Amino acid sequence: MTRIYTAALVIIGDEILSGRTQDKNVAQIAQWLNVQGIRLQEVRIVADVEAAIVEAVNALRVRNDYLFTTGGIGPTHDDITVDAIAAALGVPVVVHPRAEQMLRDYYARIGKEPTPARMSMARVPQGADLIDNPVSGAPGIKVGNIFIMAGIPHITAGMLEGLTGTLEGGRPLVSVTVGAYSPESEVADLLREVVKAHPQVALGSYPFLKEGRYGSNFVMRAESKDDAAACAEALAEKLRGAGYDPIIGGL
Amino acid sequence: MTRIYTAALVIIGDEILSGRTQDKNVAQIAQWLNVQGIRLQEVRIVADVEAAIVEAVNALRVRNDYLFTTGGIGPTHDDITVDAIAAALGVPVVVHPRAEQMLRDYYARIGKEPTPARMSMARVPQGADLIDNPVSGAPGIKVGNIFIMAGIPHITAGMLEGLTGTLEGGRPLVSVTVGAYSPESEVADLLREVVKAHPQVALGSYPFLKEGRYGSNFVMRAESKDDAAACAEALAEKLRGAGYDPIIGGL
Repeated sequence: MTRIYTAALVIIGDEILSGRTQDKNVAQIAQWLNVQGIRLQEVRIVADVEAAIVEAVNALRVRNDYLFTTGGIGPTHDDITVDAIAAALGVPVVVHPRAEQMLRDYYARIGKEPTPARMSMARVPQGADLIDNPVSGAPGIKVGNIFIMAGIPHITAGMLEGLTGTLEGGRPLVSVTVGAYSPESEVADLLREVVKAHPQVALGSYPFLKEGRYGSNFVMRAESKDDAAACAEALAEKLRGAGYDPIIGGL
Repeated sequence: MTRIYTAALVIIGDEILSGRTQDKNVAQIAQWLNVQGIRLQEVRIVADVEAAIVEAVNALRVRNDYLFTTGGIGPTHDDITVDAIAAALGVPVVVHPRAEQMLRDYYARIGKEPTPARMSMARVPQGADLIDNPVSGAPGIKVGNIFIMAGIPHITAGMLEGLTGTLEGGRPLVSVTVGAYSPESEVADLLREVVKAHPQVALGSYPFLKEGRYGSNFVMRAESKDDAAACAEALAEKLRGAGYDPIIGGL
């Protein structure tokens, strides 16, 4: 049994909580973490309120190997993530010299003034390093085990790209999906038997309604590809025995 | 100042945390709550693990008027929400007689056996009422201030439909959006002035990149439509003064 590495994610965003914006960062970061061999354990979506950010950050940073945050690192009045995380850590906010230089260079290159609002994006919790932002000017921030990322999904993606392969992780979970037009309640007993016979595999059942037909995707996750595949084969055989036509790969 | 009613949401779902499934319930429930005059304060996405569900439910139910959960109420082995919430409340799980009858009727109507797995969906925390499910057989559950809903978005939607107008709420927040192709960092100072002059309005700035151009939507939220509209007009005027072409309604 290899060590399991875990992460949590705090999404800082009134716009998600109001229903105005559809979140895309949970799925994007979860998938990226899987590839790094790190499991996303919990997500919290909190308001742009310092006390809410502090509570979530302090609850989750101590019980996970890594904590990611998205949102609230721009130049406007509602961008309070850096101050909130500094408060959570009990450290002051300082100007990061390299961030300052990067922002000066960036704005000179695009012919804009380095206004105080723009230069505020060089502020970091004391002790922080920078995370490259290949998309726009302002860098992300790494402080302790906290990775402070942009909220706009394609900028987040750029920052993740740069972090790929830099975090210590375990063995990525391998997953195999078996889909069938089998209503969950028809196959619940059969699933329980498969779960019991394959204790090293986590088996999730995800029902769907497609073109008027109920069915389920059954997802097997394991550290070993062979374990997941053997479980999938056992499940498929039982589904065929019950009169269904299972599709390895999912529906 | 009217009383503010708040809600939290706990999403129970390994499939969201693995990145396999894109969540749609946050936005759907947030928008529905807005119409009821209830503000979504926090969302937690937790694994299909009893301790994780218990912790999230107990943290959030006491500090909000309402707590919603989605997911984990089907008939399979990984559906543990009812047991976890009963554990959180310190009450036993019982069979709800009306739920039992509804399920018996439903399965008789569609010509299926009332197997133990299917009838397990009549299990509720002691003291619970049912929430109608107009889409499929198994009802949602209301216990105290907790609303236990299905995870499949169109079934969740059906349950919300039936709850519309039944929860006590405050005045819905009115929002007005002003959009412009103004990079946030160009207008941060101007925004601060508008925020200072309209303390009764919450002003959020949401940057975007559309067809290669950076811009922002500025969302004004207030209890009073007049307050939001006056703030939007003041912001639009300042944006025009800075050389932008603001669009009321957003971009």
